[in-house]
Amino acid sequence: MDERIIKHARILVDHSTKVKAGDMVLISYSDHGLDLVKAIYALASERGASPIIQQTPTEALRSLYDLTPEIYLSRLPVHELSTYTASDVIIAIKGEENLRAMRSLDKKRLSLRAQATKPIKDVYLKKRWVVTQVPTPAYAQEAEMSMHEYEDFVFNAVLRDWRVDENKLRAVEKLMEKTDEVRITGKDTDLTFSIKGRKTISDFGEHNVPWGEAFTAPVEDSANGEIYFDLPSVRYGDEARDIRLKFSKGEIVDYKASKGEDLLKAMIETDEGSHRLGEFGIGTNDNITKFTRNILFDEKMAGTIHLAIGFAYPDCHGKNQSAIHWDMIKTMKPGEVLFDGRLVMKDGVFTFMEEGKKR
Amino acid sequence: MDERIIKHARILVDHSTKVKAGDMVLISYSDHGLDLVKAIYALASERGASPIIQQTPTEALRSLYDLTPEIYLSRLPVHELSTYTASDVIIAIKGEENLRAMRSLDKKRLSLRAQATKPIKDVYLKKRWVVTQVPTPAYAQEAEMSMHEYEDFVFNAVLRDWRVDENKLRAVEKLMEKTDEVRITGKDTDLTFSIKGRKTISDFGEHNVPWGEAFTAPVEDSANGEIYFDLPSVRYGDEARDIRLKFSKGEIVDYKASKGEDLLKAMIETDEGSHRLGEFGIGTNDNITKFTRNILFDEKMAGTIHLAIGFAYPDCHGKNQSAIHWDMIKTMKPGEVLFDGRLVMKDGVFTFMEEGKKR
Repeated sequence: MDERIIKHARILVDHSTKVKAGDMVLISYSDHGLDLVKAIYALASERGASPIIQQTPTEALRSLYDLTPEIYLSRLPVHELSTYTASDVIIAIKGEENLRAMRSLDKKRLSLRAQATKPIKDVYLKKRWVVTQVPTPAYAQEAEMSMHEYEDFVFNAVLRDWRVDENKLRAVEKLMEKTDEVRITGKDTDLTFSIKGRKTISDFGEHNVPWGEAFTAPVEDSANGEIYFDLPSVRYGDEARDIRLKFSKGEIVDYKASKGEDLLKAMIETDEGSHRLGEFGIGTNDNITKFTRNILFDEKMAGTIHLAIGFAYPDCHGKNQSAIHWDMIKTMKPGEVLFDGRLVMKDGVFTFMEEGKKR
Repeated sequence: MDERIIKHARILVDHSTKVKAGDMVLISYSDHGLDLVKAIYALASERGASPIIQQTPTEALRSLYDLTPEIYLSRLPVHELSTYTASDVIIAIKGEENLRAMRSLDKKRLSLRAQATKPIKDVYLKKRWVVTQVPTPAYAQEAEMSMHEYEDFVFNAVLRDWRVDENKLRAVEKLMEKTDEVRITGKDTDLTFSIKGRKTISDFGEHNVPWGEAFTAPVEDSANGEIYFDLPSVRYGDEARDIRLKFSKGEIVDYKASKGEDLLKAMIETDEGSHRLGEFGIGTNDNITKFTRNILFDEKMAGTIHLAIGFAYPDCHGKNQSAIHWDMIKTMKPGEVLFDGRLVMKDGVFTFMEEGKKR
């Protein structure tokens, strides 16, 4: 087994979820990643925990969506809920063999199922949980890399010292918690919004591996101005490029994209909440140097910020409700981020940390 | 996908467990068999049931046995129990990649775990459950066949009309339920025992796929005489050949084997109950024509009988208790089976059915 897989497992078991003797551990995966699953299983056993494995193959899930009669599609799978309820730790591994398996799926059936299984997600979020990723040919293809290159990319992003990110993220978090107004400037961009009274959450491997993000929920009616996103936003294999949004009193009043404007329109017009911001985040992971069309990695890229439209995390004291939560990422080279008028990031570099060093 | 896999799935879902709308279905497997798992998953979805998949890779299980500290090894995995409790249907697929993975395992740890997980087994047996098998290179090797030959062997045994076996088994069952004394004769063999008041169970695909067996529990103190088993008995890759047992008042008073007598001794000397019979069964599956060192198939071979020492099924009104249940199979060519003095099987053929046809 690749030594890096053992190290990956150690991070998930010992750092992310802090598995201890007596813990009931649920490992979930889809297609690829069995080596990581086995490494976690062995490590959890060694710690005195009880591991079990739940697998949901991508194409099996697709068959469930396609074939289940509608009234049963909206029925809660109580055996699955029971498994989650009785678990202390959940380690979820993303490793799909096909990233377009749900592309032609009836979106109504997808949302019906999401509603039916919401109690499982609610229970899940109350546990010690972490989401991670294994390299697969499908993700390598999406990233336009060879499998070998992609493996290096993933392990490079994942196997780093989380203490480095913790220091950086704690500093950003501290600053954000004191901040009322955020201003973002750059190419075709001058946007302000408030994060007053909102909680900032830092993730240095607790819930996401790779990690490297501080995020919060903007005040719902506060966004004003315009912003240009140079990186594409992806949904079920569709993408929108060069998204431009214009806000007034928190609401999107104009939007366009050079490609996929129909997708952008569909996302924004989903419901009331999808017209407003649900998240503002800053990436800090220096080892993620390429955009790979995978939000788990892209949003953590050092030197980027991201905004999401739609659902806001209640943990951040966000109030926005929506059926969607769609991230848009912006490289901050060139660009500036100002907190209450103070320059904190210039051209992708945290200037306030440089100031700290000078003192 | 091999069309035979779809047919196999249909038998499990529609015949064995009769999956219906609203059922919570648990599919369990170890290493091989993902195609069958997916076919069952799709079929269950189509029926309006909710399928989930639990995987326990052979080598992962071995790591659990090896690495878990003893006090935690004997702790019940409550999340696993919860899954089983909340399920209506359990479809278990045997498909290990390595049949010797547990060979060098500390047997004390194995039995400790078996005790700890007994509540799961108890719940399992109260559900609509079935055990089946997929072809794997390890099983092909054990059967001394190529993978291609072994696939044909498995599908031939599995994909047959269960109504044929039902007719045959119902007739055997009816006869056995009226029988007080069973006598088995053949090479170095003249054994009698009572099955008075015991229930006979026929399996034509309800719990085992392949199927083809009628079995009951002999009266514990009734066996007298001797028997020779021409087929080997296997345990964790060890085997005993040419087993000869001598009974008096139900108890084994003498035993020998041409190979593996130490294994035979260890099995018989396990506990009080392992000195007595726990099962008497007759095989009826005409499509199983080869001994493959796999009890799920071997015990169903048409023209064979089998006896097990140890644990007796309470469903047969058996009372014998033991930590083991070890099957021994005997080809009845040449040989005779007599029920209350009446010849019912001669040289592997049911004579009573021939009589029935003549009338």
